[in-house]
Amino acid sequence: MSQPVAHRRTAQPAVDAERLLRRVEELGRIGRDPMTGGITREGFSRADREARAYVLEESRAAGLTTSVDAAGNLMVRARPPGTAPARRAVLMGSHLDTVVNGGRLDGAYGVLAALEVVQACAESGVETEFEPVAAAFSNEEGALFPQPFFGSSVVAGRLDGLPREPLDHDGHPLRGPLALAGGDLDALGSAVWPAESLAAYLELHVEQGPVLERARNRIGVVDGITGRTVLTVEIGGSAGHCGTAPMPGRRDALAAAARVTLAVERLATTLDLCRVATVGRLDIHPNSPNTIADTVRLTADLRDTDAARMRQAETALNRELDHLARQTGTRIEVTARTYSAPVSTSAHLRALIEESCRETGAPYQSLPSGAGHDAQVVADLTPTAMIFVPSVGGVSHVPHEDTHPADLVLGAEILLRTALKTAHAH
Amino acid sequence: MSQPVAHRRTAQPAVDAERLLRRVEELGRIGRDPMTGGITREGFSRADREARAYVLEESRAAGLTTSVDAAGNLMVRARPPGTAPARRAVLMGSHLDTVVNGGRLDGAYGVLAALEVVQACAESGVETEFEPVAAAFSNEEGALFPQPFFGSSVVAGRLDGLPREPLDHDGHPLRGPLALAGGDLDALGSAVWPAESLAAYLELHVEQGPVLERARNRIGVVDGITGRTVLTVEIGGSAGHCGTAPMPGRRDALAAAARVTLAVERLATTLDLCRVATVGRLDIHPNSPNTIADTVRLTADLRDTDAARMRQAETALNRELDHLARQTGTRIEVTARTYSAPVSTSAHLRALIEESCRETGAPYQSLPSGAGHDAQVVADLTPTAMIFVPSVGGVSHVPHEDTHPADLVLGAEILLRTALKTAHAH
Repeated sequence: MSQPVAHRRTAQPAVDAERLLRRVEELGRIGRDPMTGGITREGFSRADREARAYVLEESRAAGLTTSVDAAGNLMVRARPPGTAPARRAVLMGSHLDTVVNGGRLDGAYGVLAALEVVQACAESGVETEFEPVAAAFSNEEGALFPQPFFGSSVVAGRLDGLPREPLDHDGHPLRGPLALAGGDLDALGSAVWPAESLAAYLELHVEQGPVLERARNRIGVVDGITGRTVLTVEIGGSAGHCGTAPMPGRRDALAAAARVTLAVERLATTLDLCRVATVGRLDIHPNSPNTIADTVRLTADLRDTDAARMRQAETALNRELDHLARQTGTRIEVTARTYSAPVSTSAHLRALIEESCRETGAPYQSLPSGAGHDAQVVADLTPTAMIFVPSVGGVSHVPHEDTHPADLVLGAEILLRTALKTAHAH
Repeated sequence: MSQPVAHRRTAQPAVDAERLLRRVEELGRIGRDPMTGGITREGFSRADREARAYVLEESRAAGLTTSVDAAGNLMVRARPPGTAPARRAVLMGSHLDTVVNGGRLDGAYGVLAALEVVQACAESGVETEFEPVAAAFSNEEGALFPQPFFGSSVVAGRLDGLPREPLDHDGHPLRGPLALAGGDLDALGSAVWPAESLAAYLELHVEQGPVLERARNRIGVVDGITGRTVLTVEIGGSAGHCGTAPMPGRRDALAAAARVTLAVERLATTLDLCRVATVGRLDIHPNSPNTIADTVRLTADLRDTDAARMRQAETALNRELDHLARQTGTRIEVTARTYSAPVSTSAHLRALIEESCRETGAPYQSLPSGAGHDAQVVADLTPTAMIFVPSVGGVSHVPHEDTHPADLVLGAEILLRTALKTAHAH
């Protein structure tokens, strides 16, 4: 099957900047709120399915081979899977789903850059020892179905951690929306990748923080990915009339939730037990101006790059919840917990990224990732690295999330160079 | 027109206990959640209209005369209005609307007891100097359209305090739902009662607090009605990614809202500036587990029977909001304010209620009303009094709000006796 390299190789693989930026622009229209400009493509929502269809169509139009696995992950490669010679993959990718009213780059940029790399390699006819494969992992954010990293977790074989019938926040099952996206809840095992099928995983992403912009560096080489603990906390009090229930003896679930919210914040401020800690969502019942709340459910999000510190923060929070339950007369319970451990990246791959930066003259630095990424899950299987480009204003998960076009192109260029080195291009 | 008293009067007017309790039971099925048993009849909702239709049908079936004014208030009397001789009214009533998932007695009981009194008077043929009239005032709670005391405010001529186009919490106008209920937003002036048309206003209500039950008294004679200030507070921060936005420099609207919630609570606890103070509702944007909230709107509800203390509490809260805005880097604004002043009841009417209690041997006591009531608005026009019956467990605005049937009947009996004395029955 192999042909002389000189014959097939027509040019050095190169990023097509115009094509990449066009795709970023077109994909950014899917799920876009015309008023705010924010993108809402919750995993397995209709807008998410539209985004997936866009990437599949662009890939097929480019003559690439696409597939969708049982977890709804999209895979794009130059040749049909199973074409001899079977090679280990250099997997590259990210996700297409977003938070509610988020930005157009978080995840989507990494998928489109990976597609660009696969397409550039296919077009150039470059021969590589390992096969470049682009992936769009399903439901990374978990905005609708609270199983974040769903797709990458299945690829990594973390099936035990998934509920048998995953449900969204309102209790609707994942099964149907997963099938609409081409997946199959009963065949998740078929989507697991054996470790020996992979040579490496590379993920390009916007930084989502202010570090690169402040330091005027254009490329970030991620040395570690933050771990994340998300606790669902349920507070049960007693409803009552706001005017007639005397203050002593009240069991106000919303006032208790306010104390929990500030206790979570303190973990990362005065107590310095983890790097960041946030309450972003409260569900209040009955949420009426004239009635004392009887139930509040909230999510506490704790992150650090040090697993021991994360454990300490969680222990301290649990102790504080017990204390607040006694103080407020409410029942406070942690009803759900998700945990992703902090992960170190591959020193070898980091060195290849830095080499690519030096080749192009791009100013770069090391930094930790504050956000969670599919990379931390795939790191179970194979050596993993991440490349960051600067976020304008350091913001993400907001409509005005942005990165300068030149940085988007440069990031893809660094991904391509690193992928070629990793894949042992001839 | 007058006939000999002995000829028309067939019996002493008396409460028909079975009829009253049947109506309480039947009305309590309208808007009832079969799971929780709670009643949701937000003012001008479909369920509220159903409740209004029920009362109109019961009244007409009893041969009484009904009318609906421009504000959607129902009025029930023995004879058509305008029937000579025109007499000043002893108005009795309350409201049919509820909070979300509230109880079946708050408001509804007072309307049905007033109807019972008008019907008992009509059936007995008793002659009175003043005319007994039963009223169901519209939208007392303001659960959907945040214009609480809407109907009684119009009757009292407080038209200046109403927005020209009242809107619900989602921005839908009141105009259409008001018309469906038989009202007319452009003719509210026609529903105003001149002060000289009224002799007195009496309102029977469940206590909604624990005082009578704890003291084992069966009737409460209300000496003052609490005032209420409701502030809508809007907090503007900056959205951001929960993992990558460093804690310093965050402008977290939800963390600021937690501080506001506790500041409101403190007004009525450690600071003792008002009797009760509550945050019952928070609207959070985007309310996502993974995103720092950028906007929170909340309602602060402050109550006291002393107007000067209420002003002090509000001033202290405004000062604290300024402080919290500086501390949290958010913008905090009071975007709406409703105020109802505390009101004293008529000493003369209170004496008549107490006399009725002594006649029946009912154990009674004076107490303030912790909740707001239509009575405090109608008090602008005419001497006003309120009668309370005990609330089981002291609770209200909850599905299990209840009063013993014997107390419901006794309350109506006291209302009837007091109304006859007030109306100068012959």
